Amino acid sequence: MKDKKLLARIDQYIHEHVDESIGDLARLCAVPSISAQGSGIQEGAELVAHMLEQKGFEAQIMPSDGNPVVFGQAEGRSEKTLLFYLHYDVQPPEPLELWESPPFELTRRDDKLYARGSVDDKGHIVARLAALAAVRHAMGELPCRVKFVVEGEEELGSPSMDAFVEQNQELLASDGCIWEFGGVNQYGQPSQALGMRGICYVELSVRTADRDAHSGLAGTIFPNAAWRLIWALNTLKDRDERVLIPGFYDDVRPVGEVDLEYLSRLPDTSDHRKEMYGLAGFLNDLSGGLEFERTAVFEPSCTICGLESGYQGPGSKTVLPAEARAKVDFRLVPDQAPDDIVKKLRAHLDAQGFGDIHVELNGGTRPARTRPDHPMVALADRAAKAVYGQESLIRPMIGGSGPNYPFIHTLGLPVITAGVGYPGNGAHAPNEHVRLDDFIQGIRHTAYIAAAFAENSD
Amino acid sequence: MKDKKLLARIDQYIHEHVDESIGDLARLCAVPSISAQGSGIQEGAELVAHMLEQKGFEAQIMPSDGNPVVFGQAEGRSEKTLLFYLHYDVQPPEPLELWESPPFELTRRDDKLYARGSVDDKGHIVARLAALAAVRHAMGELPCRVKFVVEGEEELGSPSMDAFVEQNQELLASDGCIWEFGGVNQYGQPSQALGMRGICYVELSVRTADRDAHSGLAGTIFPNAAWRLIWALNTLKDRDERVLIPGFYDDVRPVGEVDLEYLSRLPDTSDHRKEMYGLAGFLNDLSGGLEFERTAVFEPSCTICGLESGYQGPGSKTVLPAEARAKVDFRLVPDQAPDDIVKKLRAHLDAQGFGDIHVELNGGTRPARTRPDHPMVALADRAAKAVYGQESLIRPMIGGSGPNYPFIHTLGLPVITAGVGYPGNGAHAPNEHVRLDDFIQGIRHTAYIAAAFAENSD
Repeated sequence: MKDKKLLARIDQYIHEHVDESIGDLARLCAVPSISAQGSGIQEGAELVAHMLEQKGFEAQIMPSDGNPVVFGQAEGRSEKTLLFYLHYDVQPPEPLELWESPPFELTRRDDKLYARGSVDDKGHIVARLAALAAVRHAMGELPCRVKFVVEGEEELGSPSMDAFVEQNQELLASDGCIWEFGGVNQYGQPSQALGMRGICYVELSVRTADRDAHSGLAGTIFPNAAWRLIWALNTLKDRDERVLIPGFYDDVRPVGEVDLEYLSRLPDTSDHRKEMYGLAGFLNDLSGGLEFERTAVFEPSCTICGLESGYQGPGSKTVLPAEARAKVDFRLVPDQAPDDIVKKLRAHLDAQGFGDIHVELNGGTRPARTRPDHPMVALADRAAKAVYGQESLIRPMIGGSGPNYPFIHTLGLPVITAGVGYPGNGAHAPNEHVRLDDFIQGIRHTAYIAAAFAENSD
Repeated sequence: MKDKKLLARIDQYIHEHVDESIGDLARLCAVPSISAQGSGIQEGAELVAHMLEQKGFEAQIMPSDGNPVVFGQAEGRSEKTLLFYLHYDVQPPEPLELWESPPFELTRRDDKLYARGSVDDKGHIVARLAALAAVRHAMGELPCRVKFVVEGEEELGSPSMDAFVEQNQELLASDGCIWEFGGVNQYGQPSQALGMRGICYVELSVRTADRDAHSGLAGTIFPNAAWRLIWALNTLKDRDERVLIPGFYDDVRPVGEVDLEYLSRLPDTSDHRKEMYGLAGFLNDLSGGLEFERTAVFEPSCTICGLESGYQGPGSKTVLPAEARAKVDFRLVPDQAPDDIVKKLRAHLDAQGFGDIHVELNGGTRPARTRPDHPMVALADRAAKAVYGQESLIRPMIGGSGPNYPFIHTLGLPVITAGVGYPGNGAHAPNEHVRLDDFIQGIRHTAYIAAAFAENSD
């Protein structure tokens, strides 16, 4: 790491400006920029651009095939360029009744800051800005050129990011990328995620009539949309979790020895997860260990995220539904691709006699990984050691998804993580929050990486 | 039928008091007495009792195991007793956005009266009162003793009616019963329904965790409530509509020759239904005819009425649901019984490895039938001929359900139908309505039956 005096100056600035950072986070979380519901998008983009400008970056709101992308940049001492990928959109706050404080009002309780987006991903946007302000102050200027790409559709599966990166390769050209998340595990150990599963999020829907019918009059003679959906979904996955779509596993690459070695070093968090979610057990009788870790990240998944048909209120309504819908999330591993999976899903449904089931792709990203021996991985680890006092856990792949494919494959960048998260932070769930300590450590880690980035050899 | 002068006096009174009857209907429909949602129940019962008293009946609101029952009675010339079974509760109005006028505000358009309950069953409550007022006026007194049982849980499957009838046999003792519905088919022909399928309405639910999880982190290792529900439901019925619960068909009696004869006389309404509901076709490639009619009413059914799990809003939310629910409606034929079906369902789920699926019975009634050769059936038919100018279509069984079992088997009554409905009236659906002509004819038919009831030999 850089000399201790510089790091001390960075730390001092960060600590002296914590309240300002919390204020920035509160401002950003107050905008309900929910891409799934199409709300607050322009407002969210404008506020991010405004904050970038306030911190000394040129900012522009750029069109994409979907929601606008905020691009920011600033010169630095070196020509080397560090790129930050982030997103200003958030998950829907539902179910609202489970929030203990209003989801779009940053609320501090027990040194935790609660709000939708407080971690995912507005906490990270603010952390990057706070880190770079500290580095700029401590060094008199930025040590390298810095670029920001802050998109507004990450929670939809980043449908426009592939094309946006493809079309703006020159503008985005960089030497390394810090991803939108990062942080510590439940033991406080920093984690480094080097790959992400892809995602293929589809909506299956079927309509069997113009309107609902009386179940007594129609039950034995009318087609029922809910039954059609049940029978169709049942053909997708068996009770042993094997996906039954022909060809689904064709492009799955075997897990490498090095990957298994990294996975075997991970601490056993299975009991912790069981307790946190109140689980009786895991699928297929898995308990902690290598097979558990491998299944969690190197197996592709088929998850029903939502089901809807007919009457869902209290008591009974004797209705035969005309329409039924399911949201299904496939997580993909190298080298599966969303377009290919949708094609195979369609062919499978047709072959099974479910031509009436409509399939709509709601967003897809391909899986991608950074090689573990890239020098930037070592740099992030050294910075983590200086901040957290211990080595990073290397995760060759994580279960979540994001558009890292175009950054890794189109721009050719190593992509590393650093951030403010921890496993209990409730991202995508009610009462999402960032712990104040994690917030400060995530700012420091980002700052230490930025300070050393220009001198890192790659 | 009675002498023409008497019938003419009855008709004159009915026509002169149509506006008053419409006013009564508007008052009654204004109370949203939705048993499934627990609203307006006491208010509904009180208004019915008040209306009975206004029309010269003693009325009392009696407790039951569930919602209160309104009992009414009045003396007449003969000791013979005619019992009216009705209900003051209605179906939920959802989906609200499909109503063209407010569901609890009786609205007249094109000689149709729109409101939730305008047919089912408040239109019938008002029709009975209007008919008896006309008969009382024309004859100077009621020709026979009249009793009313108006319950508040019919739309829940009448869970308390068996016990209520059992406990009040003396009070309810009668010689014949007019049921809560009736009317004409799509060709204007009066219909006589002599039996009803039973119902067994259950809610299946499963909880796999204390809270929803991120589908990326949990998809391949956490149990998913939605998948558990899908797999469990799939074991209940195959794609050929055969219910797979062992023993489900054990108590189904073969359809008799007389029943088949009546069914074969029914007009072919299949094209009409196809058009009304926008169906591409019927189940198992049925088209009109005897097998279609037999399947519609003499086959037991298993209908999914509602499905609910996870995120159902617009766009995508990458969540793994902790809970999933389905509402399932079994229609039963003689001699199936709801308690027995629930027991078999539970045993089946357990045997299939679905001990985690919770089953709750939301209401059940047994199937029951009146014998077609009962003199009261002939009386109703003669009255229909006088009103509608044609013979009634005899339906030995209909697809819908109701608590006719205790009236037929505990009280030993013949149960016949007469009323204000027609196939397009939208009962249980948005824009429920009664046609003004049907309303008047249903009042006349009820009045003619009441006028002749005491002299009918049985």
